[in-house]
Amino acid sequence: MTGRRGRRPGRSDTRSDILSAARDAFAEHGYDRATVRDIAARAGVDAAMVHHWFGTKEKLFQAAVDVPFDPQELLLDGAPDDTARLGEHVVRTLLRAWDSPRGRVALALLRSATSSERAARMLREFVLARVVRPTVARSEADPHRAAWRGALMASQLAGLVVARYVLRVEPLAGAPAETVVGAVGPTIQGYLTGPLPGAVAEAVPGAGNVEISTERHVAP
Amino acid sequence: MTGRRGRRPGRSDTRSDILSAARDAFAEHGYDRATVRDIAARAGVDAAMVHHWFGTKEKLFQAAVDVPFDPQELLLDGAPDDTARLGEHVVRTLLRAWDSPRGRVALALLRSATSSERAARMLREFVLARVVRPTVARSEADPHRAAWRGALMASQLAGLVVARYVLRVEPLAGAPAETVVGAVGPTIQGYLTGPLPGAVAEAVPGAGNVEISTERHVAP
Repeated sequence: MTGRRGRRPGRSDTRSDILSAARDAFAEHGYDRATVRDIAARAGVDAAMVHHWFGTKEKLFQAAVDVPFDPQELLLDGAPDDTARLGEHVVRTLLRAWDSPRGRVALALLRSATSSERAARMLREFVLARVVRPTVARSEADPHRAAWRGALMASQLAGLVVARYVLRVEPLAGAPAETVVGAVGPTIQGYLTGPLPGAVAEAVPGAGNVEISTERHVAP
Repeated sequence: MTGRRGRRPGRSDTRSDILSAARDAFAEHGYDRATVRDIAARAGVDAAMVHHWFGTKEKLFQAAVDVPFDPQELLLDGAPDDTARLGEHVVRTLLRAWDSPRGRVALALLRSATSSERAARMLREFVLARVVRPTVARSEADPHRAAWRGALMASQLAGLVVARYVLRVEPLAGAPAETVVGAVGPTIQGYLTGPLPGAVAEAVPGAGNVEISTERHVAP
């Protein structure tokens, strides 16, 4: 224990330099396209140093957005084999995280995301990479439809968080988690596995209405 | 025209005193229970002075939250007689307002709402009073079910704004408005007129899970 204390300032600086470079890289290129090599170069260190401090790119990302838990781990824990129950599972997992003390940290992240362009991009990449894409990939193979399903799911989940925890709209804010799961779960399920409306299903990527700028939809 | 220029500082102060008092009152009591009389008393002026400066309580509220348009007017303009098409109308109206230059002002309001408790309450009251309740009242008479329908609708609308305009999640951010109307309209329609899940429909107000704190659901 004592060996970990009294770190030399030089080591701490390296760590925060890497984190700062990571935030720039993730905000600029998105989660998928940012590389550890590029982040190391920006921080003026060797890529091995990044791996030494943070392990995987996932872990570095998590540290960079300062999220105290990995939502993908929460989502996989107890996920139903039956994709017809995926919607309620996603909502239940979201509420479990936000109703816990960790929710306060997440709220701070959300606040910074609405006030800073870079934080907004970071949060978007984090939510897409660790929540949305892994969930959508379980039931939708087509990348164009998966992108739409993911964006629609993200919109309802973000709105649930804003209504329940930020604006505190009743009766949603004070309702037991399972009541909310029953009310919002079917919406998420519909976005994940229900029919997509014609204009969405038929829109052709590259035709101008499906701009996938910084998000590359890579199968996990 | 020239008569309106060069206001005496005293008059301007009165106006901003009233606005400040209104923000306090609306944040504390909510839109429905805040009174012009109370706001005037807080500002140390006569109620007639409040009416002189701002007209109705609605107009005062709009000035207090600094919204450059009245969403209820937008909603009523061209609203379908058929409540089965209300969902898409709500989404279309929302996107028209946010895609316009006025959307930038609304974005600033949303940003302040996530960083300040008072601004969050103001925004909630504004959205409930001018968007949610007037819409829900067209198709749901039961106050308990109306509160749930309104909160669920608010959650999807808030999330659509966050995903499209704040986080800019693609393909939702770059899609034409009508494509988004087709994708999200049915969700709003379901919340407005579709079946409510058992736990929501059966929950009894006052049983602990329907805490309607500052919102009183007064029929418009």
